[in-house]
Amino acid sequence: MDEITRVAVDAMGGDNAPEEIVKGAVEAVNENHKIKVYLVGKQAAVQEELAKYTYDKGQIEVLHADEIIETAEPPVLAIRKKKESSIVKALHLVKEGTCDAFVSAGSSGAVLVGGQLIVGRIKGIERPPLAPLIPTETGCSLLIDCGANVDARPSHLVQFAKMGSVYMESVMGVDKPKVAIVNIGAEEEKGNALVKETFPLLKNCPEINFIGSIEARDIPTGYADVIVCEAFAGNIILKLYEGVGATLIKKVKAGMMTSLRSKIGALLVKPALKSTLKGFSLEEYGGAPLLGLNGLVVKTHGSSKSIEIKNSILQCVTFKEQRINKKIKEKVILKDK
Amino acid sequence: MDEITRVAVDAMGGDNAPEEIVKGAVEAVNENHKIKVYLVGKQAAVQEELAKYTYDKGQIEVLHADEIIETAEPPVLAIRKKKESSIVKALHLVKEGTCDAFVSAGSSGAVLVGGQLIVGRIKGIERPPLAPLIPTETGCSLLIDCGANVDARPSHLVQFAKMGSVYMESVMGVDKPKVAIVNIGAEEEKGNALVKETFPLLKNCPEINFIGSIEARDIPTGYADVIVCEAFAGNIILKLYEGVGATLIKKVKAGMMTSLRSKIGALLVKPALKSTLKGFSLEEYGGAPLLGLNGLVVKTHGSSKSIEIKNSILQCVTFKEQRINKKIKEKVILKDK
Repeated sequence: MDEITRVAVDAMGGDNAPEEIVKGAVEAVNENHKIKVYLVGKQAAVQEELAKYTYDKGQIEVLHADEIIETAEPPVLAIRKKKESSIVKALHLVKEGTCDAFVSAGSSGAVLVGGQLIVGRIKGIERPPLAPLIPTETGCSLLIDCGANVDARPSHLVQFAKMGSVYMESVMGVDKPKVAIVNIGAEEEKGNALVKETFPLLKNCPEINFIGSIEARDIPTGYADVIVCEAFAGNIILKLYEGVGATLIKKVKAGMMTSLRSKIGALLVKPALKSTLKGFSLEEYGGAPLLGLNGLVVKTHGSSKSIEIKNSILQCVTFKEQRINKKIKEKVILKDK
Repeated sequence: MDEITRVAVDAMGGDNAPEEIVKGAVEAVNENHKIKVYLVGKQAAVQEELAKYTYDKGQIEVLHADEIIETAEPPVLAIRKKKESSIVKALHLVKEGTCDAFVSAGSSGAVLVGGQLIVGRIKGIERPPLAPLIPTETGCSLLIDCGANVDARPSHLVQFAKMGSVYMESVMGVDKPKVAIVNIGAEEEKGNALVKETFPLLKNCPEINFIGSIEARDIPTGYADVIVCEAFAGNIILKLYEGVGATLIKKVKAGMMTSLRSKIGALLVKPALKSTLKGFSLEEYGGAPLLGLNGLVVKTHGSSKSIEIKNSILQCVTFKEQRINKKIKEKVILKDK
């Protein structure tokens, strides 16, 4: 298979733009020759960064965009007004077919809204969910939805479950992914109104391997491969994962610095600890795909460094090569009828 | 102040009953002579455990209860049918004024339902929230509500915010506790329907020190003292705290065992690490009070060991001595009119 995956990258999005974004793009093309990156943003600034690196010039193109959408701007308004922004221009590259995918560390709201308004949903998909991979004891799980659609309905959650299954099966190679719905108890009768209504629908879905409820406590153990929830809950899960992890690691480090004895011990455990904890880092898994669009939109963390940008770009290759959208059309939409 | 706090304890509740429950009760009375504990449960089993310890016999009384409510039983039905259960009998001790408080590691559902049905709400309180203390980088925060009322309304959340403020101020000694609402972004216009409706109500509450939204990422930092949310979200937060913590500590331990070098280091850091991580343990803070009832009901974790039972019993003393319910009546109810 020697087809090229063409990825539009928001060179101006995120806390570390354009430096880390450009660096990540260079790292991606240097790792995989079947990628072409379109860096969209302020031409002069992007070129200045690019000049620092060695790479195949045919693999990176710069497209000038005069405006930047800031994180604080109301997303819908920003997408409508700022036609010359990096996000809007890059999304149009996907819409018109010049690019297969778009990667941004910029305003989540603008990326989510823009993805839906400009790239558009696959016909039959009610709402496109944002679905990051989160680390677990045994590998990783897909958390779907984690930010795109607050106040979702049961039918949305059923589509999330199906799309998540397709993704975990095709992109991550998990056979018959175990699907669970986030709940506040393991029993079927537990939950809020949304979960109680959704549970029997999932139970009667022959296309997925539904294993019932999952309590938040069990998410990090890897009990389920696809973790279904509405966006408000999903956002809490994703961000608390980050927050508790950061605080605990800070505590562990501080604990090791409390005595001479522990300081010496810290020097000895450091390398081993570093490699173990790396496997439990959100950064390892690149960005979160917004599933169900006519093209791929990947949102990475606002504080993304080059490694996350690189991983997000590489993720687009797998997504294209595995024909995820074709599978979503076949397995999610048709079966809905 | 030499008044006695009388605490009914569910001797049969939780995974480690009656052993750890009885042990915790003994530890509590041995630590504080102004407590009287009523151990409610199977008399023979409880007496057998009690016989292992030395304590002031006047401080512990055993009340026989023939039935046990299991975790899997539907709570409302169980409370209505099992009149002879330890939970129902103990709750009646609170209702009739024999006891000031009730502590249980048993079925959460039965404790929450029973608290409301038997002990009853303070007049004017719409829903009693379950409010555990969770560890943070700087100390601890009150998470309110974390399990009692799914699908809550904005007016409930406003009462939670006020009750939480009273608790943190009087029990934990925090001056003007900072109150925040759990949200998926820092901006006022973000959130689901419930949060959007509640936000302006909290903003216009002169009785509390409302500081706006809190993202889940910032909860472990101690950014707010009182963290307001509806029960489904709160339950996710509480349980994920536990889950991520457990998994990370497992990872850290495994990481330290990967090489001879790191094993030696582990021996050196172990004591320091243990004491640091202890401060970040949910167990340190005893149980979660169910606020707004005519008496105090404290639910501790199903896997509670004696330390949690002891801390939960001691917590009842502070609750009584600080006249929390009087303050709730004055500050939450009257101000609502």
